[in-house]
Amino acid sequence: MTSFDVDPRPKYLRYLVGAIPKFLRRPPTQIRNDTGLASHSSSVFTESLRVTAKEVNACLDDLLPLPEGPERRVAEAMRYSALDGGKRLRPFLVSASADLFDVPRPYSLRVGAAVEMIHCYSLVHDDLPAMDDDDLRRGRPTCHKAFDEATAILAGDALLTKAFAVLSDAASHPDGLIRCKLVAVLANAAGAEGMVGGQMLDLLAADADFDEQQTRRLQALKTGRMLAVSCQMGALLGQAEPDAMKDLDSYGVYLGAAFQIADDLLDLEASEADLGKATGKDEAAGKATFVSLHGPERARKVAKTLVDQAVAALDRFGERAESLRAAAVFTVSRRS
Amino acid sequence: MTSFDVDPRPKYLRYLVGAIPKFLRRPPTQIRNDTGLASHSSSVFTESLRVTAKEVNACLDDLLPLPEGPERRVAEAMRYSALDGGKRLRPFLVSASADLFDVPRPYSLRVGAAVEMIHCYSLVHDDLPAMDDDDLRRGRPTCHKAFDEATAILAGDALLTKAFAVLSDAASHPDGLIRCKLVAVLANAAGAEGMVGGQMLDLLAADADFDEQQTRRLQALKTGRMLAVSCQMGALLGQAEPDAMKDLDSYGVYLGAAFQIADDLLDLEASEADLGKATGKDEAAGKATFVSLHGPERARKVAKTLVDQAVAALDRFGERAESLRAAAVFTVSRRS
Repeated sequence: MTSFDVDPRPKYLRYLVGAIPKFLRRPPTQIRNDTGLASHSSSVFTESLRVTAKEVNACLDDLLPLPEGPERRVAEAMRYSALDGGKRLRPFLVSASADLFDVPRPYSLRVGAAVEMIHCYSLVHDDLPAMDDDDLRRGRPTCHKAFDEATAILAGDALLTKAFAVLSDAASHPDGLIRCKLVAVLANAAGAEGMVGGQMLDLLAADADFDEQQTRRLQALKTGRMLAVSCQMGALLGQAEPDAMKDLDSYGVYLGAAFQIADDLLDLEASEADLGKATGKDEAAGKATFVSLHGPERARKVAKTLVDQAVAALDRFGERAESLRAAAVFTVSRRS
Repeated sequence: MTSFDVDPRPKYLRYLVGAIPKFLRRPPTQIRNDTGLASHSSSVFTESLRVTAKEVNACLDDLLPLPEGPERRVAEAMRYSALDGGKRLRPFLVSASADLFDVPRPYSLRVGAAVEMIHCYSLVHDDLPAMDDDDLRRGRPTCHKAFDEATAILAGDALLTKAFAVLSDAASHPDGLIRCKLVAVLANAAGAEGMVGGQMLDLLAADADFDEQQTRRLQALKTGRMLAVSCQMGALLGQAEPDAMKDLDSYGVYLGAAFQIADDLLDLEASEADLGKATGKDEAAGKATFVSLHGPERARKVAKTLVDQAVAALDRFGERAESLRAAAVFTVSRRS
């Protein structure tokens, strides 16, 4: 995995400075501060994220039909948890990465929907009384509050399972070997050596007095792996060359690290109404985060540098990667 | 799905009667009563089941390493739940089905281990306080008793995820398309339209006053689908022709139905010490089972007929399917 070392002079700067006519060049520090993206990018990105979310929601709606029998209840809980209007950042990363290689959109949307199913299942189980014990998620009662604990456990299990059914279906890509690789990378990112391992660390964090390195590792596993694998799956759909694959992977890793710091800042600073979930929980639980270890100012600075590094990793893709660059900026500027 | 209609004169009878010299033929009813298998089959089968269990345990041991970090805890819980000495009937069905087509054993053992991971995860989650609330499983504390609820939830999630990582790995079969098909059939059998759907029905069964058809459907989903898919995956590994695939599927479906009735009989009649788990739970919970609806005598008779039908479905494979035939008999004769 790419290290998170804060590079004082990111590679993209050299690229950018070379590409911009001399009279338009600003001092490097200023370019770094606004990550070098045009000011209108943010609203273009927000619209693009919204459009992808709408497409992914339609895809999830299709993929999660309601059966007739009494087992309908678990399907209702799956739909309640998966169709609840999240930002769909992971599906966006899948399709924006796949777009670099002109992958037909129906494939990348299905693969994005599968990744989102994994994300949603992890939230459903994370919210359970035995885990984080949360009542509120995206402004609505959590799954076990809206249904019951047993149904929430089963709905999470079924969403996790369904993700692999979707990926292995020929409608996700005509080449069976590529579908198989998609399954492999997602299973590895989501399992005990990835996201679930991070959730385990998170459970232990309150009592374990983690140092900075351990905290970063927790975050890289819990959040980073799923963001990084989203980009990797887009690249797999596009049958990217190893070098391009590696760069997209680096982008995803930096993005994931920035995302988690921004999340911790939001937990500290945003209101419950903004986030649609309980805030201040990390502090109350005595959990070490990058923010609690270094303070919000340093955290903001590091997050920004990580975004710079994410952006720099996209050099080879030129203008085509503009929406991925904007996504990196968005991760640290979002208010929810 | 093959129907469970009780055929008064199973096909295998005609096959068997034709194959046995006239002076050795017993009256059809007697042949049916001991399912037509030689009396020494049972001990041969038990030994064969034991050998496969040992091989699968070694494979699971390999596939579930213990990492160094604090997330080791979830890996320990996975190993606790997956390496606890079950009968490994599902892996046996995978490898015995694959043996019909001379599939190299390392493939069928890995695939069997993946199926067993799904089975074990379902037990871990089923035992949780919010579900069946069981303290005892295979004679030991259940996972959430030995660890804690949060760890048990995560260990179940990770076992489920790992199953797909194993299937999609090239070590499970050199052909990516076959690996992809293995993922597809297992995900469909284990998800909301299969095993999880059955678990949902099971949760509702206590209050829902299910009739016989609904009870059979619950059992077919909760237990039958995973037994049937085990045979199907063996056939997939062997790249079986559609007709052979269909027959193995029929075998699995009949076997699954027989297995569940036998399970309900054990729940009613066996001791807690025999089973290594709490008994009499169905009755206490007021759950409809085939046994509660028709009484143990009729249940035993139907289970036996289902075994006959399972055995009959194997006609085309001749002597090579002897261990699968013995497995069918075992499902209704077992004491635990």
